[in-house]
Amino acid sequence: MLTIALNKTAGKDPLYEQLYQHIKNSITKGEISAHTKLPSKRALAAQLGISIITVANSYGQLQAEGYIYSKPRSGFYVSPLDSLINTASNISNIHNNPEKPASTSRRLASSAYISPMHPKGFSLDLSSNSASQYFPFQTWSRLLRQALSQHQPELLQRSPAAGLLSLRQTICQHLKSFRGMEVNPEQVIIGAGTEYLYDLLIKLLGRNLNYCVEDPGYKKLLYIYEDAGAYCSALPIDEQGISLQELNNGHYNVLHISPSHHFPTGIVTPVARRYELLAWAEHSQSYIIEDDYDTEFRLTGKPISSLFSMDKSSRVIYLNTFSQSLTPTIRISYMILPLLLLEKFNHQLSYLSCSVSNFEQYTLAQFISQGYFERHINRTRNSYKKLRQQLLRALTRHPQHSLIQILPQASGLYFLLRIHTTASDDKLEKTFASKGIRIQSLRHYFVNTALAPDHTFVMNYSSITQEDIPLLVNFLFDSIGY
Amino acid sequence: MLTIALNKTAGKDPLYEQLYQHIKNSITKGEISAHTKLPSKRALAAQLGISIITVANSYGQLQAEGYIYSKPRSGFYVSPLDSLINTASNISNIHNNPEKPASTSRRLASSAYISPMHPKGFSLDLSSNSASQYFPFQTWSRLLRQALSQHQPELLQRSPAAGLLSLRQTICQHLKSFRGMEVNPEQVIIGAGTEYLYDLLIKLLGRNLNYCVEDPGYKKLLYIYEDAGAYCSALPIDEQGISLQELNNGHYNVLHISPSHHFPTGIVTPVARRYELLAWAEHSQSYIIEDDYDTEFRLTGKPISSLFSMDKSSRVIYLNTFSQSLTPTIRISYMILPLLLLEKFNHQLSYLSCSVSNFEQYTLAQFISQGYFERHINRTRNSYKKLRQQLLRALTRHPQHSLIQILPQASGLYFLLRIHTTASDDKLEKTFASKGIRIQSLRHYFVNTALAPDHTFVMNYSSITQEDIPLLVNFLFDSIGY
Repeated sequence: MLTIALNKTAGKDPLYEQLYQHIKNSITKGEISAHTKLPSKRALAAQLGISIITVANSYGQLQAEGYIYSKPRSGFYVSPLDSLINTASNISNIHNNPEKPASTSRRLASSAYISPMHPKGFSLDLSSNSASQYFPFQTWSRLLRQALSQHQPELLQRSPAAGLLSLRQTICQHLKSFRGMEVNPEQVIIGAGTEYLYDLLIKLLGRNLNYCVEDPGYKKLLYIYEDAGAYCSALPIDEQGISLQELNNGHYNVLHISPSHHFPTGIVTPVARRYELLAWAEHSQSYIIEDDYDTEFRLTGKPISSLFSMDKSSRVIYLNTFSQSLTPTIRISYMILPLLLLEKFNHQLSYLSCSVSNFEQYTLAQFISQGYFERHINRTRNSYKKLRQQLLRALTRHPQHSLIQILPQASGLYFLLRIHTTASDDKLEKTFASKGIRIQSLRHYFVNTALAPDHTFVMNYSSITQEDIPLLVNFLFDSIGY
Repeated sequence: MLTIALNKTAGKDPLYEQLYQHIKNSITKGEISAHTKLPSKRALAAQLGISIITVANSYGQLQAEGYIYSKPRSGFYVSPLDSLINTASNISNIHNNPEKPASTSRRLASSAYISPMHPKGFSLDLSSNSASQYFPFQTWSRLLRQALSQHQPELLQRSPAAGLLSLRQTICQHLKSFRGMEVNPEQVIIGAGTEYLYDLLIKLLGRNLNYCVEDPGYKKLLYIYEDAGAYCSALPIDEQGISLQELNNGHYNVLHISPSHHFPTGIVTPVARRYELLAWAEHSQSYIIEDDYDTEFRLTGKPISSLFSMDKSSRVIYLNTFSQSLTPTIRISYMILPLLLLEKFNHQLSYLSCSVSNFEQYTLAQFISQGYFERHINRTRNSYKKLRQQLLRALTRHPQHSLIQILPQASGLYFLLRIHTTASDDKLEKTFASKGIRIQSLRHYFVNTALAPDHTFVMNYSSITQEDIPLLVNFLFDSIGY
């Protein structure tokens, strides 16, 4: 039992901070031993006469800092002291706390499916993807060390706005071998993540323009364009991707799409549609941003030629990221500008500083040029291919398999699962969550939710392991049977 | 004489690439020996029947990669082979080439004084500052290695939009001991460089507002605000910084200033003026962005309390960067939001990804918390203090010292030098340049150049060494005597 005296006088530290400090001190002093269960949020709130939100905030911060851990459907426990490291942690989950009452902000309202950070409490999180678990620490560490000892003068020399030439060169080599793309290093612009590059593109293309994105898709894109002061619409897609009819119904200046592997449906826009899109761009003097995010992890089918390679009229900007293929915590993305835009970039925006550290640019350049990136992609892809097969097999061989259907398109680190049920998507998500599994329905990716198919769930399986499969599959079918 | 056959058939590599490859191969094979002068761009262009721009592009790339070097007012020469390293290089100097005809773009027109990247050909560059030469590679490398081997799970865990809590905590500790500031880690927002943070602030504060900056100052700020779609004015400063009269003459919503160490004049805004500015902000419901850039390197005088600490009405945003105090090639800056804005940030912008890699955030957190940052600042400051004294002594003891005057204010990594001459600033700069010295007049930092004092030069001395002083001083007085 925790005995805590909180000072509610105005001007003192906020209550959640006092509570956090008190529990933290008790843990570090050893007054509460490892693996002790903490009181439930509700109980502690009642005991102290404060709100549950306040307790949740304190627990959230303690958990983010590693002082306590949670067990699904059980509660919070004190971490063993020797695991208390000065951990990289997340204070913002205080603000994204699912227990927070429905928010006035569309950002908060939608944060759950945008980029769920630290979904602690979920033992299996299928709400977002990254190939992080295969990050090659040893190689990266060695290359970094080499750079830091052997290339000090270069590391201290300012990178041009577009990034280090050596990295831009190796990216061109990679694109040639991996995507058959012919790109000049001058055309490559490096930036600290795709979000940064979208902002840069808006500066380059113009703000008072009509942008459009795919619906369903990453809603985050819509927010980014709007927060940068552009107008942005979400256009419905058909089974081949964005449709010409939709484009021609409006006056759009910039179209942002993922034609080679749409997320989350996995749709691949076929060649004929691609030519139509290119003709639209040329005719309307519009630009297409080709987001090739995730193509490295298409696991089946022949890679399709990029729109950028097919474009003859300088209307396509190609965009990709290493944050997806290595780890989201390394912020390196790039875009390839068509020549006319490159000229404009050099005249208008080369005064900016490159937003990525030289140290990591240099390390990544070596990582690619020495062949490690290709090996990493291959190894990772093979592992995921195997994991995917095992998961699909476990699902389709389950005695109740007739209750589900695996949709065929999405062939990357995710697939779509249709569930034959009368329960609402919301109810199913809550049931999954109550079992410690975070799975989101396709509806979350729609702006116009009326268009969303029912009972279809996005299975981002990249953060689970082979050992998790039986548990996941059982919980899943249990939930359906509820 | 170079004999080169270029293939102008469509579909072949671009001409500049062919030319670049050809010359590069000739150099690496030893067919052209070290220090051989290459044909002038004009001559080679005429000989090969291609444009001068194409040759300039090839030479630019060769130079950026270290295959050739340039001598001012002479031309390009082959580098000695053993200095050929896979250098981090700069293709953008192709576009900033001083031989390029006067540009239509204000960016290019002003790029010279914005952030001169790779001013190759200048043996002494006093046009920009950084404390890079003292970058503690060994310590940094050790901390990075430790992080990479001991903290792998944390490094792969997504950082919240505002950055890793551990780094934000250590920044608060640093601000407390170094600046006497009381800041909650929640208020700290990490970003990949100040330019990134300015953009973020515009998203937070609003785009359709009137921003204002100091004149003289970093003109880049003006461009950044305008490129982000905001209105931005440059207001003249008096001997205490930005004046209330100027502020009250317009309707400004956001004021961006460096009250503790104005660049490049070194002016420190006194306490009375600070209170006036705070009252203005409170009364007009405006915001003040306090750019504390470079305060670590004020070499004399007591550090003055930050505006942020004096602010009682949540109107001041504090901003600083590690890119200045460590090396500009590490992109880590931060801002401190007042509580009301923090709330807005968490609601509106926490969906964004943090733009700095976890690896470097984690390393920097350790670097600060283990006391290395403080030691680095102290060591660097002492070295520069000594260098500054030596340079000032050499200048004031020169037989012709009566031709110059050192202006008293600027006490950081720069000072202002007034030259008693009838020659124009432009002529003097060119004379300096002809001797391989890059020094810029204060005029370059003015938007309203009519306000600029004559014959006043900004001496950014941080990239020179003690050994350079006699040469620099002699060249300088030689130039004056021209």
